[in-house]
Amino acid sequence: MVMKSSAPIIYVVEPFGGSIRRHNPTLPMVYWDDAAVTRGDGVFETLLVRQGRAANFERHMDRFRSSAELMDLPDPGVAQWAEATEAAVAEWTAQSDEDARCVWTYTRGRESTGIPSAWLTVRSIDEQVVAQRSTGIKVMTAHRGYSLHTEDSADSAEPPAPWLIVGAKTLSYAANMAALRYARAQGFDDVIYLDPDTGKVLEGATSTVVTVRKGGKLRTPTPGPDILPGTTQAALFDYAERHGWRCKTKDITMDRLYDAESVWLVSSVRVATRITHLDGVKLPVPSHKEEAEIRELMDKALGR
Amino acid sequence: MVMKSSAPIIYVVEPFGGSIRRHNPTLPMVYWDDAAVTRGDGVFETLLVRQGRAANFERHMDRFRSSAELMDLPDPGVAQWAEATEAAVAEWTAQSDEDARCVWTYTRGRESTGIPSAWLTVRSIDEQVVAQRSTGIKVMTAHRGYSLHTEDSADSAEPPAPWLIVGAKTLSYAANMAALRYARAQGFDDVIYLDPDTGKVLEGATSTVVTVRKGGKLRTPTPGPDILPGTTQAALFDYAERHGWRCKTKDITMDRLYDAESVWLVSSVRVATRITHLDGVKLPVPSHKEEAEIRELMDKALGR
Repeated sequence: MVMKSSAPIIYVVEPFGGSIRRHNPTLPMVYWDDAAVTRGDGVFETLLVRQGRAANFERHMDRFRSSAELMDLPDPGVAQWAEATEAAVAEWTAQSDEDARCVWTYTRGRESTGIPSAWLTVRSIDEQVVAQRSTGIKVMTAHRGYSLHTEDSADSAEPPAPWLIVGAKTLSYAANMAALRYARAQGFDDVIYLDPDTGKVLEGATSTVVTVRKGGKLRTPTPGPDILPGTTQAALFDYAERHGWRCKTKDITMDRLYDAESVWLVSSVRVATRITHLDGVKLPVPSHKEEAEIRELMDKALGR
Repeated sequence: MVMKSSAPIIYVVEPFGGSIRRHNPTLPMVYWDDAAVTRGDGVFETLLVRQGRAANFERHMDRFRSSAELMDLPDPGVAQWAEATEAAVAEWTAQSDEDARCVWTYTRGRESTGIPSAWLTVRSIDEQVVAQRSTGIKVMTAHRGYSLHTEDSADSAEPPAPWLIVGAKTLSYAANMAALRYARAQGFDDVIYLDPDTGKVLEGATSTVVTVRKGGKLRTPTPGPDILPGTTQAALFDYAERHGWRCKTKDITMDRLYDAESVWLVSSVRVATRITHLDGVKLPVPSHKEEAEIRELMDKALGR
């Protein structure tokens, strides 16, 4: 059977060294009592598939395992996921030259079995996301609406309450989705959260903020409990550092977004999208040469 | 086929007036791209099934519809859910005299169709939950770990950021589940959240706090953005008011838990569970007569 390039590919990854097997995407797969369905209780990662490989595999795998550990899930292991990803990517590449989106999902599993459920999917990328890589996006900023507390507020070195699972990329994403719906209803493409106490720039709803400053400098907000560490930003900074850029994490205020050479949202599948308008204000437009240089940097950083 | 009393019953409720049909619980039901699975993006309600009916139907239905509205989901409607619930409850009652647990789930649906998914399940209640109605539970308190901000913190009448979907009972429940795991790992059965700023009592991880005070008084924390309005507490207060109790919402401090006649966690399926120990301290034990009176009150409140 010849498949259309848009047909998704699904591999079920049985936990604890079980089988890896293809699942027909036109059939239902998840049981009614799976913790992913009933409680958003699981973790995930989204990877870019490009030119026959899953980009930035190691960083995604590190965060995937770390998310699982924070959620008290058994270690998902590496070998099976590598094998399943390779098989699915090879299948995609045989049917399409285009970039694709690979998602790993790992849940607490069915209540009736207590065994985690796990699978990955490879599918085409939304046309709009691809288009925005060229056109850029209009972004609103908003106070996140809550602030995290340390257990003992007198000692800010204490970690936040463990049940907030800070730093884990969980399936409980309804608030992020609501923020994107809100932004779109207001005529924006995306949202950047600000710290409600300090006004500092935190992160995008599903991305990391990166600024380009004069003199070959890249900046991203200092990681903290309010900011999920970005795998794409990490790959970018690692590559850029080794190619003459000066990269730093810094506390970033709104002013530092407005006076940057350019401001970007980076994440695995969008790669990098330039912000053209921030809260309705047009941002400076870098020259074609400058913009092309940044894009090339991003692409090369993920190409390793 | 004679079914065991523990066999779950599932009805798929097609949105927009479609069919209501039984789904075999031994077969998978949910697609890989359903928003419930990928993003915890949907709403739910849990109802007690007792003596041939779903208790407190109207209040659950009101909250279900309100949750959907807060999430920008189409109105789930009432008639179909009433019909499906009645059919499933009748089926349960034909096979068992025991209480059961009915869960309504309504999600944003498959990414590939954009049409909501909806179903309900009726199943047996965990033995432990039933046992705790008699034995009571040991509870820890903990600062919730975050505080909500109003959009303009100078004006506390402003609602919290809309993307936090405050007041909606969503499927993004991973943090609540993590709090329960944490409590159990410390040797407790459940957790009550406190406001990190004021220390005031908020709510249980999946329940409402109710205290019984001398002179026939019932108290529950004043509702606010930090507290999901409790359907069981509402039914209890409504019934109790009409039977000579004085019921009030109040700001409740830890002291008011320690000096109450008894302290309860109420929610639909547990109904009411008395807290025997709070943070390791044994709470006063009401007389058998007093305790029986409260239990009867709770049961009658839900029996209407």
